Amino acid sequence: MSDTALMDLPASFLEIEHRRVLLPDGIALDCGVQLSPVSIALCSYGTLSPARDNAILVCHALTGDQYVAEPHPLTGKPGWWARMVGPGLPIDTDRYFVLCMNVLGGCMGSTGPRSPRPQTPGSQTAAQAAEASSEPWGTEFPPITIGDMVRAQRLVIAELGIERLFAVIGGSMGGMQVLQWAATYPELVFAAVPIAAAAFHSAQNIAFNEVSRQAIFADPDWRGGRYWADGLVPARGLAVARMMAHITYLSEEALTRKFGRRLRRDPYNASAPLSLFGEMFEVESYLRHQGSSFVSRFDANSYLTITRAMDYFDIGADHDSDLASAFKGTRTRFCVISFSSDWLFPTAQSRAVARALNRAAANVSFVEIDSDKGHDAFLLDEPALDQTIRGFLVGAAEHAGIG
Amino acid sequence: MSDTALMDLPASFLEIEHRRVLLPDGIALDCGVQLSPVSIALCSYGTLSPARDNAILVCHALTGDQYVAEPHPLTGKPGWWARMVGPGLPIDTDRYFVLCMNVLGGCMGSTGPRSPRPQTPGSQTAAQAAEASSEPWGTEFPPITIGDMVRAQRLVIAELGIERLFAVIGGSMGGMQVLQWAATYPELVFAAVPIAAAAFHSAQNIAFNEVSRQAIFADPDWRGGRYWADGLVPARGLAVARMMAHITYLSEEALTRKFGRRLRRDPYNASAPLSLFGEMFEVESYLRHQGSSFVSRFDANSYLTITRAMDYFDIGADHDSDLASAFKGTRTRFCVISFSSDWLFPTAQSRAVARALNRAAANVSFVEIDSDKGHDAFLLDEPALDQTIRGFLVGAAEHAGIG
Repeated sequence: MSDTALMDLPASFLEIEHRRVLLPDGIALDCGVQLSPVSIALCSYGTLSPARDNAILVCHALTGDQYVAEPHPLTGKPGWWARMVGPGLPIDTDRYFVLCMNVLGGCMGSTGPRSPRPQTPGSQTAAQAAEASSEPWGTEFPPITIGDMVRAQRLVIAELGIERLFAVIGGSMGGMQVLQWAATYPELVFAAVPIAAAAFHSAQNIAFNEVSRQAIFADPDWRGGRYWADGLVPARGLAVARMMAHITYLSEEALTRKFGRRLRRDPYNASAPLSLFGEMFEVESYLRHQGSSFVSRFDANSYLTITRAMDYFDIGADHDSDLASAFKGTRTRFCVISFSSDWLFPTAQSRAVARALNRAAANVSFVEIDSDKGHDAFLLDEPALDQTIRGFLVGAAEHAGIG
Repeated sequence: MSDTALMDLPASFLEIEHRRVLLPDGIALDCGVQLSPVSIALCSYGTLSPARDNAILVCHALTGDQYVAEPHPLTGKPGWWARMVGPGLPIDTDRYFVLCMNVLGGCMGSTGPRSPRPQTPGSQTAAQAAEASSEPWGTEFPPITIGDMVRAQRLVIAELGIERLFAVIGGSMGGMQVLQWAATYPELVFAAVPIAAAAFHSAQNIAFNEVSRQAIFADPDWRGGRYWADGLVPARGLAVARMMAHITYLSEEALTRKFGRRLRRDPYNASAPLSLFGEMFEVESYLRHQGSSFVSRFDANSYLTITRAMDYFDIGADHDSDLASAFKGTRTRFCVISFSSDWLFPTAQSRAVARALNRAAANVSFVEIDSDKGHDAFLLDEPALDQTIRGFLVGAAEHAGIG
């Protein structure tokens, strides 16, 4: 048992109160399982108009959650898109009613591997099932797809009395959800903004995800996914997974600019000689911090479930390998955005989406933003992104006759 | 204790007989330690000419070794550059005497973390020290630099009665050694061929190496580096490290071409539904094989030591941040080679080396080979590489008046 394993993480995860919507009939998953009960946790900002026509759904990325524009209840840090969503900001909560939901399979309040497993799934009422067992699903949680995540979101907005979304916006895995929304529910999406995304997960991205998963499996504290039974978390494996993934979110230029080859000595031992296992390069210290801070806010089995969902994603394959046919006849207005230094979801993959939309005669604009910040540029201070989103939404709102 | 940990790896590692050269005075390391005794394991091919002027030193990469053109004693696989080194091949053993040495700090016979640690280092004769203890150095092995590796190689060729090398050739970390040779011993190197290398290790490459190391540290079977004491190997951590590194050796194009999104079902259960934790995509199956086969031929502490040596590497920093001054006045003939799809050691880094050599008024040719195979192209079937090396060596041999 490791020092890091005895954290109070499982308790703190479960103790947070989130705002939730219960889906009374559960959800039919792509894998064939009828999942029930299902709750989706969400945050919202702004006011739904009397015509209920100003709702924007923001979709979060792999390790994001619904706390888009308010302090995170676990970390206390500002919302992950607080610079984008708020009064007067590009996604203007003075004009729009902005929703963000924790994805199905996540660990911030929505039904996922940490949720209690009903003893006889599907054969009980939701309330009975929830009381029947407090044993989490763990790795028995059924495999989830991006389509499942979006279907759950669709059921949530119906519960909230919202028939159509003015816009769906998201980056990375959030952008996958945007594309899935537009392909599955074209009549419900007036405008779609997929950022730093792709129509399928590439072999290289599957490969990186697989190494992440193997790092978690390799941690003996993972215990075949039953770490919660002993109050453990596979902190070392999850930290390694996060460290590796974090490199892929940045660019070589950004790493060179931020860290280069600068050394960082142990502050308590400034005169010590270089040590093989001491902190050495600043980039190493940075990555270790990224890894260790991540494990306090994320569940390992959710990481496994959600990375799998990303790997399954391939909209074209669901339409006879013809991406254009996925969007045939769509009236949704698209703004496809990529970043020049993003090598995880390169511009070429966004351009392929834009071209397919063109072939489908869709209304689409494609913007490659010149940035050296890599994939994570969509989360960072990138004024061209703000301007692009603001301008697109203003134009779309005029066409929609809202605001 | 894991299933994979009870391999007979430590025994088999130590039981192989390698050809070795003992450095009777040991070696003064860059870190200040006088390391003694030091043995370097090597292979050779071809015949040293009476004038002793036809020696080519091939330098291996991070996970390579001296078995360049003969079957590997542990794996039984062909030598790692058997397609390049041999009679009539580009590095022609009918003309040249070809040497390859396991690097200092390695695990294939050269002194490294698995070597017995002398009880009082430096105060005994080599023979006394070797007998005094059979406890390996482990993580107490001193930090090694690329300069140390090259200094050891320099001492070995002197022991063999070779004063000058006709050529030094290597890819990746082998290319770092080539540059170090040319910078440190310009009078001893007639021709130098650094392939897919750089004059310093970038922040991104340090970051990937650091994640590799953290994956090893995270394996409880690593036991603070003393896994040998219990007959263990940190197989899971080392496999994760290798899997991640392997992605960086390929290109997105190569991964897409080789695997794409093709699924691989469990051959014993072909009709089973998709399973979250079963083999899924071919690229995953491939990576798992890469990881698991690696641990049977490589020592984890050597991996730590050698990745550190790569991270330390920065020839320019050793010359007041002026790379050109490292090669000032050199008469060595250089052929700098890069691959267009190599994102670990991108062409820009090789071009920077070529430009510095130009500023130093060196004789340099720079070749970027168009390939979609990524960094590993130097190990693979790449006819343009064969032609480039063959042509450069023929021309250099004419100038040297040999052959």
